[in-house]
Amino acid sequence: MNIIDGGVTSAKGFKAACTAAGIKYKDRTDMAMLVSEVPCVTAGTFTRNLVKAAPVLWDRQIVESGALAQAVVVNAGIANACTGEEGFDACRKTAAAVQQICGFAPEQVFVASTGVIGAQLPVDKLSAGVAAMVPQLADSREAGHLAARAIMTTDTLPKEVCVEVEISGTTVTIGGMCKGSGMIHPNMGTMLCFITTDVAIKKELLQKALYETVGETFNMVSVDGDTSTNDTCLVLANGLAGNAPIETEDAAYEAFKEGLMAVNKALAMKIAGDGEGATALFEVIVKNAADREAARTLSKSVVTSSLSKAAVYGHDANCGRFLCALGYSGIDFDPDQVDMWFQSEHGTLQVAENGVILRYSEEKAKEIMSTEHFTVICDMKQGDAEATAWGCDLTHEYVTINADYRS
Amino acid sequence: MNIIDGGVTSAKGFKAACTAAGIKYKDRTDMAMLVSEVPCVTAGTFTRNLVKAAPVLWDRQIVESGALAQAVVVNAGIANACTGEEGFDACRKTAAAVQQICGFAPEQVFVASTGVIGAQLPVDKLSAGVAAMVPQLADSREAGHLAARAIMTTDTLPKEVCVEVEISGTTVTIGGMCKGSGMIHPNMGTMLCFITTDVAIKKELLQKALYETVGETFNMVSVDGDTSTNDTCLVLANGLAGNAPIETEDAAYEAFKEGLMAVNKALAMKIAGDGEGATALFEVIVKNAADREAARTLSKSVVTSSLSKAAVYGHDANCGRFLCALGYSGIDFDPDQVDMWFQSEHGTLQVAENGVILRYSEEKAKEIMSTEHFTVICDMKQGDAEATAWGCDLTHEYVTINADYRS
Repeated sequence: MNIIDGGVTSAKGFKAACTAAGIKYKDRTDMAMLVSEVPCVTAGTFTRNLVKAAPVLWDRQIVESGALAQAVVVNAGIANACTGEEGFDACRKTAAAVQQICGFAPEQVFVASTGVIGAQLPVDKLSAGVAAMVPQLADSREAGHLAARAIMTTDTLPKEVCVEVEISGTTVTIGGMCKGSGMIHPNMGTMLCFITTDVAIKKELLQKALYETVGETFNMVSVDGDTSTNDTCLVLANGLAGNAPIETEDAAYEAFKEGLMAVNKALAMKIAGDGEGATALFEVIVKNAADREAARTLSKSVVTSSLSKAAVYGHDANCGRFLCALGYSGIDFDPDQVDMWFQSEHGTLQVAENGVILRYSEEKAKEIMSTEHFTVICDMKQGDAEATAWGCDLTHEYVTINADYRS
Repeated sequence: MNIIDGGVTSAKGFKAACTAAGIKYKDRTDMAMLVSEVPCVTAGTFTRNLVKAAPVLWDRQIVESGALAQAVVVNAGIANACTGEEGFDACRKTAAAVQQICGFAPEQVFVASTGVIGAQLPVDKLSAGVAAMVPQLADSREAGHLAARAIMTTDTLPKEVCVEVEISGTTVTIGGMCKGSGMIHPNMGTMLCFITTDVAIKKELLQKALYETVGETFNMVSVDGDTSTNDTCLVLANGLAGNAPIETEDAAYEAFKEGLMAVNKALAMKIAGDGEGATALFEVIVKNAADREAARTLSKSVVTSSLSKAAVYGHDANCGRFLCALGYSGIDFDPDQVDMWFQSEHGTLQVAENGVILRYSEEKAKEIMSTEHFTVICDMKQGDAEATAWGCDLTHEYVTINADYRS
């Protein structure tokens, strides 16, 4: 597997464009569009929030129907959530605008939105945006990059990843872009992720690979524990790589899944590290837990703890907060068995042994925490399951962003 | 029932004292002591965190043994959590110091600690503190008030409440003090609550009344979702009011429980409103939920949501965040049924109807949110269960306090 410089236009047959539709922001692009030369097998995962935005309902219908999709239209600024019938109608009209120009049936067109909850989308601006984008669609690296920029909200950086995998002698490309200062975040924090690949694969296996990789990657990210109304992850596979179609869970499937895992993991870590107001990626590795689900819950409990996150921000080696967050996770374990380490590029330091906090060097601990990627390792000594969760620190800037986001 | 100016020394036969033992803070009192003239029936509730501080283990033993307790010793500055055998031994030695002077058996002496996790208690300072406090024990209003001050950490105000209830013609007094900038908070945020009453009551009924009231009060408070290693709520009942002892769940029991509920609710709201860095008490009332547990979970989901809390801080009428937090609570409901209102002393405003956000006056909403007590009311239209949760806003000051608490 090779990681290459690329994004959503890297796989064969995919084009992208963007435009400044003036939906909410001024002086920046706020719409993006992806189109495949040929119809695509699709897979998707969506927010588990009961309050689902209109585009989530629209896209889920398409994925479940088994329709072969060919385009994605995304806007930033307005989430189209809590908007009732009128909101769902805006999805229909956006797809109709694409149909009018490109000829794709509405059920071949995904739509996605991110931004403020509760406002209605200006459908005329979206239709005009589509009309402006179609003539600009291009398969260049630059076109993919500009699309990744257009879907940003409070993100400080566009997020793109691309890998090449060899499948039975054929090179398959998997490229993705996403936005989100939190998986797990209503309003601007919504995670939207779009992955394009030229692999030939059966729909059921594409969906299975997506589920299996999302559970280990995006679902292990938390910026603030708030699960968005709009979270969406879509994969479009057009088969143009020319590999022998993947139809069983064989070595080819495993190779593809490994590539998809790499793309999703890299994108998930980019989202965590670019959490709203964040100064550091906060990684928690739980080892030797009783089972996988326990390991996941324990690592997420620490990574979402406000006090742990504030300690990471302050470079305060207050490891009692991390132990405490393990303790209230709801998972059963023996607190008198837990060992803990701090780790970064500045070294590794044991801070607790058998549940007792050690008299470690505060200076060394502070040095390890003065980093953009800080890791806490917890050894539960119960079994052999492991999980990693990613988050970020809790900063003054987070409060500033969220106290007056709409103003 | 009368609410009166009072605290832990208001019920008959209770005395308090405090001292500056120099455990961590300088220039302030950091130890308090309560003593009853006669042995007390006791009840207690403790943190559910698996990582339990040594004093929690010590006190739980006393409550479960059925021993008649006579004293409580509290320190601020060090939590005595994650301290292993040495930490538990510090509890034993503190009780022994009380025994030496007062003659109470060790199992008659509760101990409680709040502060940094991981450091060992300086037992010599605690013993000296006990020796300094015993001669000062007094039943004055002032003595109770100074004890409530001595146990503060990041609290900005001491927290005391007192009520009188009539039980079959006899006046019974229930007074309490607590500290905590969060129920639900490791380190300094620990909630400690001590309630003294002169009621005569059977131990099992005292414990039952405590459980039933804590579930509706302290357990509905959240400052930051972090459950402390040290949370403790103790009730000492010495029977000196002279009421006919409460031995069944009769009218007398109900009258006492109502008084205890009032004390616990008032203390719980004081904790929420004095959450670390808070500028406002944030109250969430969920009405017409399917059942009580659902109502509780829904209201707590909103009150703990970082984005909702930040919106309260910014007086930003971003009601999509509150709807979103209902949606990810894990409780099943129909999002297309939910109505929502904002409320404060400045008025009431409906912001959502049948799941759709209304075009309400932003100006009016901002005015309602510019308060020290902001309420969100959610009507689920599912059943007839109701619950209220209390929290506070998320502010820059919260981050400041927690990014370098130990420094």
